[in-house]
Amino acid sequence: MSDECKRIKRAFETAESALIVSHLDPDGDSIGSMLALGRILSNLGLEADYYSEDGVPKVYRFLPWADRVCNRVAPDKSYDLVITVDASDIKRLGNKIVLSEVGKLIINIDHHPDNTNFGSINCVHLTSSTAELIYKLAKYFELKIDTEMAKCLYVALITDTGNFRYENTSKETFLMAAELIEAGISTHEISTKIYDTRTVPMIKLFAAAMGTLETSENQKAAWVTVTQEMLQKYACRSEQLVGLVDHIRSIAGVEVAMLFREEKDGVVKVNFRSKDKVNVSEIAQKFNGGGHVKASGAVFHEPIEAVKAKVIAEVLRHPS
Amino acid sequence: MSDECKRIKRAFETAESALIVSHLDPDGDSIGSMLALGRILSNLGLEADYYSEDGVPKVYRFLPWADRVCNRVAPDKSYDLVITVDASDIKRLGNKIVLSEVGKLIINIDHHPDNTNFGSINCVHLTSSTAELIYKLAKYFELKIDTEMAKCLYVALITDTGNFRYENTSKETFLMAAELIEAGISTHEISTKIYDTRTVPMIKLFAAAMGTLETSENQKAAWVTVTQEMLQKYACRSEQLVGLVDHIRSIAGVEVAMLFREEKDGVVKVNFRSKDKVNVSEIAQKFNGGGHVKASGAVFHEPIEAVKAKVIAEVLRHPS
Repeated sequence: MSDECKRIKRAFETAESALIVSHLDPDGDSIGSMLALGRILSNLGLEADYYSEDGVPKVYRFLPWADRVCNRVAPDKSYDLVITVDASDIKRLGNKIVLSEVGKLIINIDHHPDNTNFGSINCVHLTSSTAELIYKLAKYFELKIDTEMAKCLYVALITDTGNFRYENTSKETFLMAAELIEAGISTHEISTKIYDTRTVPMIKLFAAAMGTLETSENQKAAWVTVTQEMLQKYACRSEQLVGLVDHIRSIAGVEVAMLFREEKDGVVKVNFRSKDKVNVSEIAQKFNGGGHVKASGAVFHEPIEAVKAKVIAEVLRHPS
Repeated sequence: MSDECKRIKRAFETAESALIVSHLDPDGDSIGSMLALGRILSNLGLEADYYSEDGVPKVYRFLPWADRVCNRVAPDKSYDLVITVDASDIKRLGNKIVLSEVGKLIINIDHHPDNTNFGSINCVHLTSSTAELIYKLAKYFELKIDTEMAKCLYVALITDTGNFRYENTSKETFLMAAELIEAGISTHEISTKIYDTRTVPMIKLFAAAMGTLETSENQKAAWVTVTQEMLQKYACRSEQLVGLVDHIRSIAGVEVAMLFREEKDGVVKVNFRSKDKVNVSEIAQKFNGGGHVKASGAVFHEPIEAVKAKVIAEVLRHPS
């Protein structure tokens, strides 16, 4: 990536204003990468603004400078530089921002294989996480990784590698983790903040949802269902349950796991996870959703039983 | 540890027979360390025997040479060398083997802080895992870490660090993990073998057990209960549920999590987990159990309700 690094360096050195943009429904990688990149720019003397249409999920708000992230850009504001992180496509940034209006030069930093290279400079590589690219940028700039930057990068790293469990975990991922410890982070402290945030009602809801487990006849597809009634009974938000689908995937022999979530106003969200044989990104795309080969999602505006019927039928059409 | 390494090297070079011994109720670290050490000895031209009174748990049987582990030693058999791995005390090896009878020289390799230094040579250091010490031994002997040895070491590493989540995870732990990838392992493949082994009835039982969640008035202690009736309904063994207690610990604000398991024949087992403020090793010791500061266990021969009452009362006596 040294050619891009050169071009990015020139852009960073000449710009006088910058906006960093995360994707919709931001995850640990987009927030962590955004904040770490902000520290790189700050080190270079450029104080960036931060934009995320959906804000910062509560679980990531302990990260330094998370409070600087805004969900709006001042009207008519224009930046020398707009840097998108972890977004495979312009559409993933939301519809309240028009990149070409808000910035003169667009830098697209991402690790998704289906990235549409929408930037003026595209730094797109299939690393574990966008954070791994941000880390490499910091190295390119010969910047010291301080504890604050390391925290942001570590959160991004563990959330996008399933805590080093996914296939995207490489030797470089672990070497990076070793250096982040060297920079002063405690993996235990961060893991606790990221993973140990459940509440008693959440555990009860988790139990109730797990109890709805169903499987296809050949036991290769398995799914659980969370209804509005269940969510209201335990006063939880459905996104607090997304981790549940990983438990369903962990059943030996299951190739596709699904979580059906009944949201308010007739919206149904489906999360897909796969093991080795099925590309759930393709399945999600069939329903205008998207994501990765092994983790994807889609949104529906139909009754949950109808959604389940057609989604399960589609999944079973894919040999596993 | 270079002084011990020298002594161990001399012992390895002069011995003509060796037995490697794991502790009772073996975990990933004891099995992985045992098998990796066996490969070191084999590289040095010494084919060891392997002893584990409780055999090898099914989940670790995919490891190379796991089938060589026996749960008995031939009568009157004596070895030049007996090496214990991951055992803090002689009692942890079981009562079917008498070390002084079975071996001329005892080498004790372990990372538990309460190790009683029962060996002729004691290689005891507070690393993440015993595997980290075995890895250092391999380096000391300038041996190539091959894929098979790396698999054993990686399983040990992730099971003893909670997949890099516990406080014992250090820079060295990650550097070691990076080298194990270099040696050809797939973290995804191994993680799947270790973690994705649930069955549909196990998930259902998991859900039922989670549904029994209770907490102390101040919400700092939380526990779940698995009865014989539940185990029989889902045809599961209670040890398949131990991971459940980590979910209970993951509740924000909970300092001590417990799992009460009703075994056959009036036996009740309790697993303790703590976050930062309570030493659950002390609590377990009060009931003749043991373990680590943050993860311990004890066994009772009383009705489960009586056990719960007295254990919870004891836990609440510890300020948290």
